[in-house]
Amino acid sequence: MRDVAVIGVGMHPFGKFLEKSLEDLARVAVWNAVEDSGVPPKEIEAAYVANSLGGLVTGQEGVRGQVILRDAGFSGIPIVNVENACASGTTALRCGWMEAALGVHDVILVLGVEKLFLPRTEDSIRILMADADVRLMDMGFQFIGWYAMELRKYMADYGWRKEHFAKVVEKNSFNGSLNPNAQYRKPLTAEQVLGSRLVADPLTLYMCAPMSDGAAAAVLCSRERAGRYTSRPLVEIAAIGLQSGRFADAGGAPRPSITTLAAKEAYERAGLGPEDVDVAEVHDAVAPSELYHYEDLGLCGKGEGAALIEAGRTRITGDIPVNTSGGLAARGHPVAATGLAQVAEIVWQLRGEAGPRQVADPKVGLVENTGGIVEDEAAVATVTLLKR
Amino acid sequence: MRDVAVIGVGMHPFGKFLEKSLEDLARVAVWNAVEDSGVPPKEIEAAYVANSLGGLVTGQEGVRGQVILRDAGFSGIPIVNVENACASGTTALRCGWMEAALGVHDVILVLGVEKLFLPRTEDSIRILMADADVRLMDMGFQFIGWYAMELRKYMADYGWRKEHFAKVVEKNSFNGSLNPNAQYRKPLTAEQVLGSRLVADPLTLYMCAPMSDGAAAAVLCSRERAGRYTSRPLVEIAAIGLQSGRFADAGGAPRPSITTLAAKEAYERAGLGPEDVDVAEVHDAVAPSELYHYEDLGLCGKGEGAALIEAGRTRITGDIPVNTSGGLAARGHPVAATGLAQVAEIVWQLRGEAGPRQVADPKVGLVENTGGIVEDEAAVATVTLLKR
Repeated sequence: MRDVAVIGVGMHPFGKFLEKSLEDLARVAVWNAVEDSGVPPKEIEAAYVANSLGGLVTGQEGVRGQVILRDAGFSGIPIVNVENACASGTTALRCGWMEAALGVHDVILVLGVEKLFLPRTEDSIRILMADADVRLMDMGFQFIGWYAMELRKYMADYGWRKEHFAKVVEKNSFNGSLNPNAQYRKPLTAEQVLGSRLVADPLTLYMCAPMSDGAAAAVLCSRERAGRYTSRPLVEIAAIGLQSGRFADAGGAPRPSITTLAAKEAYERAGLGPEDVDVAEVHDAVAPSELYHYEDLGLCGKGEGAALIEAGRTRITGDIPVNTSGGLAARGHPVAATGLAQVAEIVWQLRGEAGPRQVADPKVGLVENTGGIVEDEAAVATVTLLKR
Repeated sequence: MRDVAVIGVGMHPFGKFLEKSLEDLARVAVWNAVEDSGVPPKEIEAAYVANSLGGLVTGQEGVRGQVILRDAGFSGIPIVNVENACASGTTALRCGWMEAALGVHDVILVLGVEKLFLPRTEDSIRILMADADVRLMDMGFQFIGWYAMELRKYMADYGWRKEHFAKVVEKNSFNGSLNPNAQYRKPLTAEQVLGSRLVADPLTLYMCAPMSDGAAAAVLCSRERAGRYTSRPLVEIAAIGLQSGRFADAGGAPRPSITTLAAKEAYERAGLGPEDVDVAEVHDAVAPSELYHYEDLGLCGKGEGAALIEAGRTRITGDIPVNTSGGLAARGHPVAATGLAQVAEIVWQLRGEAGPRQVADPKVGLVENTGGIVEDEAAVATVTLLKR
């Protein structure tokens, strides 16, 4: 297996862009990533394109990547369309990583793009639901309600309080205020978070990731060829773990989350452990998820997530900074673009290019990206380890 | 790169199954493939699921593979959803092949499933259109009209006649009559094909692939581990080439088709040439396409496709049998399932298990699978080389 580096990353800022198409969003992210990589566009050899819900927005299925990349000036290369709900971006990254590691191609573009804002809000909400099992949806299921139900057990078992969740948003909204690509750039106090509209008790509006449009991209290259294009610090993919839900196979017995299993796979492949992680981006679709993920990733013990946020250890200035980009809460969450925006943030951090969000000399970064719901758990989880 | 074998294949017969869901179709194909492979279901380590249009049928996006495989009893493994229009199945195969070749996992399930029959035919037609650039569709474009326009040039340049196209269908419908998985099992005479309803001159109804429901699956395994599961003749993936359309980049200058380019990649990687191919399944979405593909794949020279069919050389008893399964015309064409049904046929042929369709002692087989339209050419083409 050949070593593979992420030699370029780029984004279209996340936000509400009613007047922009998928192509408009993607083009900016792709060009930024390609320019960042130093690769002449003609030397991009293959591409993986992640988009989860565009078929319901434009009616385009099957060849979305070909249509979107053609607009950005890329055609006549192998293009594969990949979906895995909110983890589509890192799933595409994993495909590209394997192709480059195998040596089928050397220089590979990975794109995640999503458009969720539509003229009618009810259309946007309907579309989002298509990333969970639609038969659940027909029974009245919805994401936030599911999160709230799951959360109650944790609060009872471990003494988590809504004040802890507010602190997650306080931290992430501050980080987002330092990120020019973030959808929301206004720092919120814990009081403002707690005082925002109740969505599903105990979750308030500001504890829930917003609806977003946006795109993020990465250029992958075998390490041996990377020196031809870039003189920046080289950020390698140490490993990517992928797992899907097990859907009630264990008859209710306790079992590790699929995030834990994906992390285990990634750590083992990379020969790294949680103690090596210097900076992380995790999937805070709702604020308490960030606390779950601290635990799932081994950054702290079971039930200790609240203590971690309370002690400020996951701030930019803490010993294990998490979601320096602002996370899904502030940076935004355009489904298939999210994972690659997380990757972009970690690449900037590992290169020392994160400006006011820069953490102190990180060498190993982690990206955790989760997607969809089928039955009683997430449908997919990925954990990506990047190292300088 | 490790050698990878296709150790199991299976299908749900192609046809019209209004009462069956995507899950119903997939379950049968998956179980048949797993049983054929000899792999205990618990040892399937990862899966790639190809479905192109299910989002428009059921409203399910993002996690279709997880939902579909859960119903078949597979969860808690890495699952990736892949799309590439009518070439989705072989695109998923390529992803699985790379993963096994790299050694990330050893035993990988690949599934293609599609449901096109809906209670209202106009809904089926609308859905199919989503596999071409929808902006073309809005301008009144449709697949068969495009094929017919392209075809006129060929007929003028090379003396192709509609009688040649009828002969393709005569051959394929005969082959389909020998295939229990085929949608149409009635041999048609060239006269019947020519006499069927005109769709877009010179194409008659029987020259066009039908609408179909169906599923096909394959189990991949590293060669070194394959012996643990199967004592059948081992069919290896020699190479898979993938190419996407270049979309008018050459200003109208003559250029090889993307099928030719995908074939070139596959032949070179495999160290094989067209002269080595003993049996082939090609993408006869309309009958004349089969003639194009003879040429694109190097089975004959430019403009010589009609002579090949006229001489009967591509019959089961000929020196280069093509579409022994019946092809898209008779076996049917449930978009994302098609490529893996082609693979299944070639695997059966190479193992000597094709019964009345068996060709004489083949050692190398080829699968050509094409998908979608963007601008002026196919959006994607794959060429897979399998060898015993």
